[in-house]
Amino acid sequence: MHVKERALRRMFGGTQGFYSLDSEACGGEMRFTVYLPARRDPPVVLALAGLTCTEETWVIKAGAQRLASELGLAIVTCDTSPRAVRLPGDDASWEFGQGAGFYLDATRAPWSGAYRLETHVQRELREALSGFPVRRGPWGVVGHSMGGHGALTLALRHPDAYASVSAFAPIVAPSRVPWGERAFTGYLGDDRDAWAEHDACELARRRVFPGELLIDQGLDDEFLARELQPERFEEACASAGQALRLRRHQGYDHSYYFVATFVDDHLRHHARALG
Amino acid sequence: MHVKERALRRMFGGTQGFYSLDSEACGGEMRFTVYLPARRDPPVVLALAGLTCTEETWVIKAGAQRLASELGLAIVTCDTSPRAVRLPGDDASWEFGQGAGFYLDATRAPWSGAYRLETHVQRELREALSGFPVRRGPWGVVGHSMGGHGALTLALRHPDAYASVSAFAPIVAPSRVPWGERAFTGYLGDDRDAWAEHDACELARRRVFPGELLIDQGLDDEFLARELQPERFEEACASAGQALRLRRHQGYDHSYYFVATFVDDHLRHHARALG
Repeated sequence: MHVKERALRRMFGGTQGFYSLDSEACGGEMRFTVYLPARRDPPVVLALAGLTCTEETWVIKAGAQRLASELGLAIVTCDTSPRAVRLPGDDASWEFGQGAGFYLDATRAPWSGAYRLETHVQRELREALSGFPVRRGPWGVVGHSMGGHGALTLALRHPDAYASVSAFAPIVAPSRVPWGERAFTGYLGDDRDAWAEHDACELARRRVFPGELLIDQGLDDEFLARELQPERFEEACASAGQALRLRRHQGYDHSYYFVATFVDDHLRHHARALG
Repeated sequence: MHVKERALRRMFGGTQGFYSLDSEACGGEMRFTVYLPARRDPPVVLALAGLTCTEETWVIKAGAQRLASELGLAIVTCDTSPRAVRLPGDDASWEFGQGAGFYLDATRAPWSGAYRLETHVQRELREALSGFPVRRGPWGVVGHSMGGHGALTLALRHPDAYASVSAFAPIVAPSRVPWGERAFTGYLGDDRDAWAEHDACELARRRVFPGELLIDQGLDDEFLARELQPERFEEACASAGQALRLRRHQGYDHSYYFVATFVDDHLRHHARALG
């Protein structure tokens, strides 16, 4: 796989790298980033961003590199949708299309031609990382909002690929909320059985992820009642015997100011699992 | 003074606030931000940004709030130029005009009508802060690049207003480098005596600031040789008996990835002086 280096920035004694790869899944160039701490052979934590974001969002706003450097974790980020392929209507809304890939492989035309983020992350990004000095084997995965949906669903769908999972304000029940209904209808069509395969609540009822899941949720999150509804995931985990630590935080909203506040706890969660 | 609240974000147990004030100095609305930690009556550190930046840059990119919360410091930021008043050619270059106010009061028309950042910071911003629950008395001031110039010159020009000063990759000799020559010619005209009043090297030769100045400089900074030349300030401080701690960092560039890496040391520097 051809990986192009775009920029390297020294940071906290490690290196924040910006790259792109030629994505077959997404029909062209896809950007990604890797923070490499000074530690040799660091385990990897994949950080997935939400609607409207890019591979840069976690890098600039989350403040994860400081403790990642101390704990010796590599942080990998990717983009939230294809960029090289443009489709009619892909920028008509911030909730669908550009910046809104939902970390799944679309099956409905025309989106199925390029909106294949799951393959991009699970196969291409991993293959690209095989050329970096990071530890082989399972990664940790953390995500925010749509990226929290990505973290939970990718880990539940590919349990061998991830040793630890956490999320900030995740979309846990996309089949039942406006953001998810719109995206799943567009990318997957009307077959609700297909939706269930990408719905964290539905997946959690069927498969137990080894180890505790960590979720942080702000109680002043403007999307809490309409799009997030963490109580649905709490119920699904309770009924399936899935260990879950769901923390609710008074006064915090949906922004990266919230993410930055608690990101250290998430890195420690992943460092414990990854060793 | 009328202060308008634009947004409040909970962060690290404190509040990141976004505001604007009606600026007489700058001819219209000017934005500023205040991070308030949970601590009562916190001392203030003013953080000044560089060319092309806004009041949001430090807030989003520097990662200062985490330790500010722990140390109990308030962080104040302001914009880098007037925004309400537009002048012909003010966006022709990123090095002059919009986003490039250089923290001084222009004396040359048409810039003298609105490019009065020194009065904005020293009088208006302070007056606005008198309505916030922060400690009265001197502030700390830190800045990056053009903001580093601002931190050094404002503190040397108004020593009673500041108890501590630090800078990242500051423009220390604006009278002798392209960025400064262009800005000073535009804002101050050709009188080099007037320039000297806003040149950190010239000021340091004449006035000693009580306490050690802290400066961090990356050695892979793309502007190091042409625009920054920290050795000039080192010489000026040495000849004047000004205490200076200038740290050079191999591999670091001019970006906020560099600032974020060392910002904790700067906050501790200010916390020691502010108590």
